[in-house]
Amino acid sequence: MQSPVVIDLKFDPETVVHALKTAFPGRETINLADPANRGRDLSGIAYAVCWNPDHDLFARMPDLKVIFSGGAGVDKILAIPTLPKEVPIVRFVDDTLTNRMSEYVVLQCLTHLRQVATYAAMQKRREWRELPQPEAADLTVGMMGLGVLGLDAARKLKMMGFNVIGWSRTKKTVEGMETFDAAGLDTFLGRTDILVGLLPLTAETTGLYNAALFAKLRQGGALGKPVFINAGRGKSQVTADVVEAIRSGVLRGASLDVFEEEPLPADNPAWGVEEIILTPHAAAASDERALFRAVERQIARFERGEPLENLVNRTIGY
Amino acid sequence: MQSPVVIDLKFDPETVVHALKTAFPGRETINLADPANRGRDLSGIAYAVCWNPDHDLFARMPDLKVIFSGGAGVDKILAIPTLPKEVPIVRFVDDTLTNRMSEYVVLQCLTHLRQVATYAAMQKRREWRELPQPEAADLTVGMMGLGVLGLDAARKLKMMGFNVIGWSRTKKTVEGMETFDAAGLDTFLGRTDILVGLLPLTAETTGLYNAALFAKLRQGGALGKPVFINAGRGKSQVTADVVEAIRSGVLRGASLDVFEEEPLPADNPAWGVEEIILTPHAAAASDERALFRAVERQIARFERGEPLENLVNRTIGY
Ligand SMILES: NC(=O)c1ccc[n+]([C@@H]2O[C@H](COP(=O)([O-])OP(=O)(O)OC[C@H]3O[C@@H](n4cnc5c(N)ncnc54)[C@H](OP(=O)(O)O)[C@@H]3O)[C@@H](O)[C@H]2O)c1
Ligand SMILES: NC(=O)c1ccc[n+]([C@@H]2O[C@H](COP(=O)([O-])OP(=O)(O)OC[C@H]3O[C@@H](n4cnc5c(N)ncnc54)[C@H](OP(=O)(O)O)[C@@H]3O)[C@@H](O)[C@H]2O)c1
Repeated sequence: MQSPVVIDLKFDPETVVHALKTAFPGRETINLADPANRGRDLSGIAYAVCWNPDHDLFARMPDLKVIFSGGAGVDKILAIPTLPKEVPIVRFVDDTLTNRMSEYVVLQCLTHLRQVATYAAMQKRREWRELPQPEAADLTVGMMGLGVLGLDAARKLKMMGFNVIGWSRTKKTVEGMETFDAAGLDTFLGRTDILVGLLPLTAETTGLYNAALFAKLRQGGALGKPVFINAGRGKSQVTADVVEAIRSGVLRGASLDVFEEEPLPADNPAWGVEEIILTPHAAAASDERALFRAVERQIARFERGEPLENLVNRTIGY
Repeated sequence: MQSPVVIDLKFDPETVVHALKTAFPGRETINLADPANRGRDLSGIAYAVCWNPDHDLFARMPDLKVIFSGGAGVDKILAIPTLPKEVPIVRFVDDTLTNRMSEYVVLQCLTHLRQVATYAAMQKRREWRELPQPEAADLTVGMMGLGVLGLDAARKLKMMGFNVIGWSRTKKTVEGMETFDAAGLDTFLGRTDILVGLLPLTAETTGLYNAALFAKLRQGGALGKPVFINAGRGKSQVTADVVEAIRSGVLRGASLDVFEEEPLPADNPAWGVEEIILTPHAAAASDERALFRAVERQIARFERGEPLENLVNRTIGY
């Protein structure tokens, strides 16, 4: 008998139900968003696909064999106290997620480069005036995180003409890109005009994007001052420091997709800062159909005895 | 004796003066923006570099051998009644101009795809809500004009994930892109979600982007309605029709960099339409240093008896 798959995805409920209709052919799915499944016995079930799961999920699944994350980041799953120690965790990354993230990163870099906010203000005033305009090649984007997402975004930024340098935990060799590791952080920051954060949330990356870091970014580049873009995780960023760095003139602007607390409370000053482009953790939503296809593929590998892909390393935390 | 070069560029005067300091080594330059040169005898001089030149320029230069356009478009030069019939015209295209144009086109396509205006309005209301979000691959960009600029923009849009189809006067074969010629216009438009205009202004392209054309674009694509982007020439576009198409729901939005009359008069309704992203003919400014380097290269070829590059075909008008 094929084990059912438990679904606990805090995504748009209707989209999940719709995608489940054609997913996992020949296998039962148990969607915990359905009230009928609230008290159901989940023992004996091997698989769970989850995003912000109920904190009692793992306690209810004593026979769990693989945990599938509904997104690329696993910080929330790893933080659940009842997470079983030996069960492998597979995270979700695929082409549609990667492409969406690169859309966001390229859009934000071009938006700052091309002075969109200034032109929008001029349009409001009906003022026709061309601004001095550097080109992408005049700016260096510093990419923090050279994983699946960071590398794809870096490649596309280079193709758009930007200089790109990269930073990661272990030193990487990437054709056409100068790279740095932890020891090279200050040099990396001092050469960066647009900082892009695509790091996972771990103990080491918590609170990393703060006033001290912003102060090390290059001043006097082609845009005058540096820009900060974060599409990784909100708890890596001190949002109050971003707001203050803009106010005090350390940063020219920012694009923030993620926040320490989400939804961002309505009284957070970041909402009202004109130089911040704020989006509601929408840089790269997981496509439910693509997610279920990826999970089907990994279950098939697992049941054939092949190694799982995109496994999370719990020791390093991502 | 090396012929001097006459400069009549209606660009930012200081930038021109600055770039001229190191340009054309060993050769005299005569900048007509300098009042001292107003009445000067220009006979015997072989070269002119011009952008929106004085209408008496060609009458003052009876010995002109090559006309260099300061930009990629030559419609204004070709429209000057005293333009000498036999003098070759070289237009300016180079990597920095091309890269800048592709920055603009990719930025505008991503801005419409990623619903930037809607998210900006939500930020103003401090509303945290994720919108349903198609990805680039769900949309088809129809590129009108497959010249130096159109082809580079198309390649970069494809790399960002968009489907791209193309339209040009003579049928083109481009790897990975379906193309159409004049006869295929209606099919091309019917498949297009985002129309990008990168056509030169000629008799045939005058007034081309009008209500009848917008009505042929695909309705019901992944963004619901089509979008129009024009970075070619303003006289190809009926701006009043763009405004009306948005008002009546034929178009979802537009990005307009060029207009029938420039500067766009302050009472033009396009300024005030929220769905229009308006820029002051700033999509791809010529870089003066790059322009002068390109002209130096062509003069060297010309004086060695080699054929000039980037020659304008006066019969077809671009
Ligand atoms: N906003 C959104 O909509 C959204 C959507 C999807 C994902 N995300 C976030 O994006 C993150 C990155 O995704 P991914 O798929 O690219 O992850 P990944 O493939 O695991 O790559 C993570 C990268 O970060 C580097 N890194 C981790 N800890 C580091 C540290 N302490 N110092 C320096 N570098 C460190 C890693 O270095 P090594 O190469 O040395 O391992 C690696 O290059 C996810 O974890 C998730 O939080 C956000
Ligand atoms: N907004 C700005 O800042 C800015 C800056 C630079 C340039 N521009 C404009 O951009 C235009 C395009 O530049 P480019 O360097 O790419 O020009 P190009 O290399 O001469 O290419 C022009 C393209 O348009 C096509 N075309 C011309 N007339 C046509 C017609 N009647 N029907 C269908 N297709 C037609 C040509 O077809 P064939 O391939 O068959 O010849 C060619 O593919 C310039 O002319 C200029 O007006 C604007």
